Amino acid sequence: MFDLKKYLIEKQKTVNRALENIIRQESPLEQRIVSAMRHSLMAGGKRLRPVLCLSVAEIVGGNEDQVLDAACSLEMIHTYSLIHDDLPAMDDDDMRRGKQTCHIAFDEATAILAGDALLTMAFELLSKTNNLISPDYAFKKLDVIRKIASAAGYTGMIAGQMTDILSEGENLDMEELKILHIAKTGVLIEASVYAGAVLGDGTPDEIKMLTEYGRYIGLAFQVADDILNVEGDPEIMGKAVGTDRTRNKSTYPSLMGVQKSKQFAEKLVADSLNALEMFDKKAEPLRAIARYIIERKK
Amino acid sequence: MFDLKKYLIEKQKTVNRALENIIRQESPLEQRIVSAMRHSLMAGGKRLRPVLCLSVAEIVGGNEDQVLDAACSLEMIHTYSLIHDDLPAMDDDDMRRGKQTCHIAFDEATAILAGDALLTMAFELLSKTNNLISPDYAFKKLDVIRKIASAAGYTGMIAGQMTDILSEGENLDMEELKILHIAKTGVLIEASVYAGAVLGDGTPDEIKMLTEYGRYIGLAFQVADDILNVEGDPEIMGKAVGTDRTRNKSTYPSLMGVQKSKQFAEKLVADSLNALEMFDKKAEPLRAIARYIIERKK
Repeated sequence: MFDLKKYLIEKQKTVNRALENIIRQESPLEQRIVSAMRHSLMAGGKRLRPVLCLSVAEIVGGNEDQVLDAACSLEMIHTYSLIHDDLPAMDDDDMRRGKQTCHIAFDEATAILAGDALLTMAFELLSKTNNLISPDYAFKKLDVIRKIASAAGYTGMIAGQMTDILSEGENLDMEELKILHIAKTGVLIEASVYAGAVLGDGTPDEIKMLTEYGRYIGLAFQVADDILNVEGDPEIMGKAVGTDRTRNKSTYPSLMGVQKSKQFAEKLVADSLNALEMFDKKAEPLRAIARYIIERKK
Repeated sequence: MFDLKKYLIEKQKTVNRALENIIRQESPLEQRIVSAMRHSLMAGGKRLRPVLCLSVAEIVGGNEDQVLDAACSLEMIHTYSLIHDDLPAMDDDDMRRGKQTCHIAFDEATAILAGDALLTMAFELLSKTNNLISPDYAFKKLDVIRKIASAAGYTGMIAGQMTDILSEGENLDMEELKILHIAKTGVLIEASVYAGAVLGDGTPDEIKMLTEYGRYIGLAFQVADDILNVEGDPEIMGKAVGTDRTRNKSTYPSLMGVQKSKQFAEKLVADSLNALEMFDKKAEPLRAIARYIIERKK
């Protein structure tokens, strides 16, 4: 029986160790910005995106060295988006990952800049080369940068957050909500899987099916998030719950009720498992992660 | 006699035409964010960074196609930094380039996201490849992405902006001010020149000397900005003047007086011209731009 908990802890350790070493203060000028970046980046978190990236690379036969930078960059982009989303002008949240949000622990200006810095650092990391890199690998890196930038950009995550804010108090229909959820969360999760598959030297077929897997679990993740915002325990989650309702946000539970939302999430996970059919038991971590995504308590 | 005005207008047109075509609204979800991005990006501006990038590429024998994406990405990064710097939590400016700043024309949340989106789009653009690209060029692209990300990041522009805010009311010494000015403005101007030289297929020697030129004019630009904040005409500049003094900022004029600041800027320009010694009259645009940087009225 595959032990997901042990697997996640091990992979999270790898990611955390790498993240620890990336941001280094080199001059007194950088003291405050580095503290703020580290405050949010090293605040725990599930590390889902980097773990997915590492796991996928392993499954297609790649090694850690090929993808660890990309994995870290994905966590940086995720963290930047949380810092900016939490700002008073946006969701105005005080707690995140069980700690004060960046603008509470520091101030608004610092939080805006810390988010900017993490986003920028992600691309610095993604463009890193070393002497061993092959021309083929340079092309792959450019392809992955393009995919991640596009997922994080105004047609992806940013369109999602913008629409999320604009649609407070408005009633979205199912199709609009799906588009919103995919943009807000799904695309970066899909890009994480894509990065692992491409940089891990997967075949075109492998890349295609893994990306499909990523697309399903990306949406499932956001549906599960909606459900946790209704049923979750704020102690375990490290942030407030019930906020979607207070803000009058359209969510899966608000549109179809909690029970049907759970069934929809189950369906998405089943679809994601189907996409993994061509892979043998080496893909067991991905199957376990898919189930974990809708069973998690935070 | 080289006609800089005509040259700048022509190059600005090239840049503006390219920028016009880059950001396209593809779904209703993107309507507001695209409007905000375009509001700030298409607000005029000198286009100094992209023009430098194009000029340098031309001088080393490169063609426009090789660098136009990079040139546009530099303007996007510059514009993102202006949008975020103008926010109420930072410099709290209402006017920029003769128009309302982004958070005034839209709102704070939209301005934060529009900045994020321009920064992210810059990297999407930088990573674009086409079928004609050679392996050698792929490496160069990665190198340029790394250089630009590092210039824009927490050791460069962001450290500069953070320190700029923190040091209001504090007295910096000359060395601290120089470091601050290089980080705030100099590094991205240097990176613009570097990008043009590398992507335009310059030789290592050419890249080295052009980068040195970029370093000198980068600092000269910020010194000239300090002087304009004392002596400039707000009508011509399209933004408020005298703000450094009100905010008690350390600047070159506040530390050494306006006259000595002008001499220092002249010295930097002279040094930048020396760095161009190996280039013949093809480099005339760069020489004219160096002088323009300290003679400009906005």
